[in-house]
Amino acid sequence: MADQGVQFSEDVRPSEIPAIRWDEPPEGPVLVLLDQTRLPAEETELVCTDAPALVEAIRTLAVRGAPLLGIAGAYGVALAAARGYDVDEAAAALAAARPTAVNLAYGVDRALAAYRSACAGGADDEGAAAAVLREARALHDEDAQASARMAVHGLTLLDELLPGGGHRVLTHCNTGALVSGGEGTAFAVALAAHREGRLRRLWVDETRPLLQGARLTAYEAARSGMAYTLLTDNAAGSLFAAGEVDAVLIGADRIAADGSVANKVGSYPLAVLARYHHVPFIVVAPVTTVDPDTPDGACIEVEQRAGHEVTEVTAPQAPVAGTEAGGGIPVAPLGTQAYNPAFDVTPPELVTAIVTEQGVVSPVTAEGLAELCARSRQVTIS
Amino acid sequence: MADQGVQFSEDVRPSEIPAIRWDEPPEGPVLVLLDQTRLPAEETELVCTDAPALVEAIRTLAVRGAPLLGIAGAYGVALAAARGYDVDEAAAALAAARPTAVNLAYGVDRALAAYRSACAGGADDEGAAAAVLREARALHDEDAQASARMAVHGLTLLDELLPGGGHRVLTHCNTGALVSGGEGTAFAVALAAHREGRLRRLWVDETRPLLQGARLTAYEAARSGMAYTLLTDNAAGSLFAAGEVDAVLIGADRIAADGSVANKVGSYPLAVLARYHHVPFIVVAPVTTVDPDTPDGACIEVEQRAGHEVTEVTAPQAPVAGTEAGGGIPVAPLGTQAYNPAFDVTPPELVTAIVTEQGVVSPVTAEGLAELCARSRQVTIS
Repeated sequence: MADQGVQFSEDVRPSEIPAIRWDEPPEGPVLVLLDQTRLPAEETELVCTDAPALVEAIRTLAVRGAPLLGIAGAYGVALAAARGYDVDEAAAALAAARPTAVNLAYGVDRALAAYRSACAGGADDEGAAAAVLREARALHDEDAQASARMAVHGLTLLDELLPGGGHRVLTHCNTGALVSGGEGTAFAVALAAHREGRLRRLWVDETRPLLQGARLTAYEAARSGMAYTLLTDNAAGSLFAAGEVDAVLIGADRIAADGSVANKVGSYPLAVLARYHHVPFIVVAPVTTVDPDTPDGACIEVEQRAGHEVTEVTAPQAPVAGTEAGGGIPVAPLGTQAYNPAFDVTPPELVTAIVTEQGVVSPVTAEGLAELCARSRQVTIS
Repeated sequence: MADQGVQFSEDVRPSEIPAIRWDEPPEGPVLVLLDQTRLPAEETELVCTDAPALVEAIRTLAVRGAPLLGIAGAYGVALAAARGYDVDEAAAALAAARPTAVNLAYGVDRALAAYRSACAGGADDEGAAAAVLREARALHDEDAQASARMAVHGLTLLDELLPGGGHRVLTHCNTGALVSGGEGTAFAVALAAHREGRLRRLWVDETRPLLQGARLTAYEAARSGMAYTLLTDNAAGSLFAAGEVDAVLIGADRIAADGSVANKVGSYPLAVLARYHHVPFIVVAPVTTVDPDTPDGACIEVEQRAGHEVTEVTAPQAPVAGTEAGGGIPVAPLGTQAYNPAFDVTPPELVTAIVTEQGVVSPVTAEGLAELCARSRQVTIS
């Protein structure tokens, strides 16, 4: 077991670290992650040589973000198979690493099914390991392709809505390569605009309480050479009032059948501001985000997170002396109760368009979404 | 000069420390401040024995908040006079301690005028010192009375707008006893409702970037025994959507002649949310906040503050190892540019009412405000 656990390699070039990659050095296959807990202060690779190391990386949020967790889970199963560990045991541990992460279980299950199918088909250990790695890579590729298609559809929509170019786009939370097998969702659209020379500025909401905008989106924007500016979430109102926002681009955690969008807390106030200022509010997400079993926004249960995320401030990977229960520095009186919903729900009437890899729904209606999902299933079947 | 400088006295009873008080122990008169930089972690008294100590306290934000600074400035002049220091020199140093704080200069000038008038009238040193202390106390009392009257007018308005009682009030930034000679502005109204048993809950916006809500308003709410809950500024949208906010109560830094309200950044988004959800948005401020020389919101220059307030997180009075330029812990990539306006401007059409010590203006119109200011001048003259 000497090669198990986590190794760090530093001094890597900032612009060339993908969020996740499979590598096969002479010592055996490994899964290499960009350690997101150390961003933006350090770009450190975290090398997982087996599933337990990956489980630890998932638990500590070194790897995070719904689509990326699915990809990581699939590669984790592939790693166990390639190194001759118990594949079922590894899959069970991975799927349980973050119980609420649906995509993680999806990726693990898909990889495990490929493994079992190969075994049932008479493949030897090596053949089965190759089959599960192919499945993980396929999932990775599909996600990258979905990102690329969302970027194309999103940029086309932006250009239609804002024919003058020179877009000034406001975004919230983190929706780029750090959460995706490709270049992400909303961020991928901004990136496409940047590459075409049509992004004048990316306004980055810091995204309290966990500061994913400040820590991760600002990092991705800086890496991409975009003109970007960070702001506290509550300063967005001043930007709208000054006419400095041409469009809002955000991702989604879940989209109900009626087009209600659950996303990181702070998205709904942006939607209300966008409507008040006649600015397009655009949601970018893969079709798998649409949940036909959730009829409307009222049916989306909103997760309440721990109060210490609000009552303490925490620096990335820097617990300091005198820190409290949540590992941070208290900023509110002891015993302060906090209201800390993880996300909020934006009703379809405030959403200008939903951009998916299968196309754009605008106006956002239950019928439009259902048609898009049906088209997606046809594509999957064919 | 042995008694100059700053002394600390600890182990004081939490609920009995006023933000500022004049004291006359046997060693000579002193000005005692509640050190706001140590809140909410510690309630520490800061004893100033001369003007330079007070200047230092003002510069380090141990004492802050527009009306309170005016009171502190006046007492600072009184302190110099009572201890036999050069009063003109002390007044000049105090007025320059924070050049943009208009109230500070106002308090200093008023105390200095009282001193000069006494001297011109033939008063000896002791008599002149007594005259300037009377003026400082008068300013202190006037501010406390204005608070009390705003609370009465504000509570009456709340009860009219929300006849059912059981008010759930959302507030932003810090507007209580820590910024006032009395119980403050918006917070004083919430406190009056609480005392009458008509406040169901105070929702406290944390108020990024400097967290005055988390640090100071939560502290004042806890001291007062209110039912209060802290939230990130961007979570307010979820509260409105859930029907959990009956009214918004905020203060004001400046009110233009047309009724546009400049207040802490994040106030305008609350005004837009309040309008979208048909919730009253109420501004509470003394009439001195109305600036007839500023015709409208467009004429209010918005101060941009240092980016490190956004790109770093800072704990109250707790610089830690590895901190950067602003004394905080970096949370964004090095070199990140930040948009950090100190306040925003809410147009009169989004303000349900402006509550002052002279009465309430609703609807908010230039005529209504002008009439109120004229009434105020009559009161001052009579």
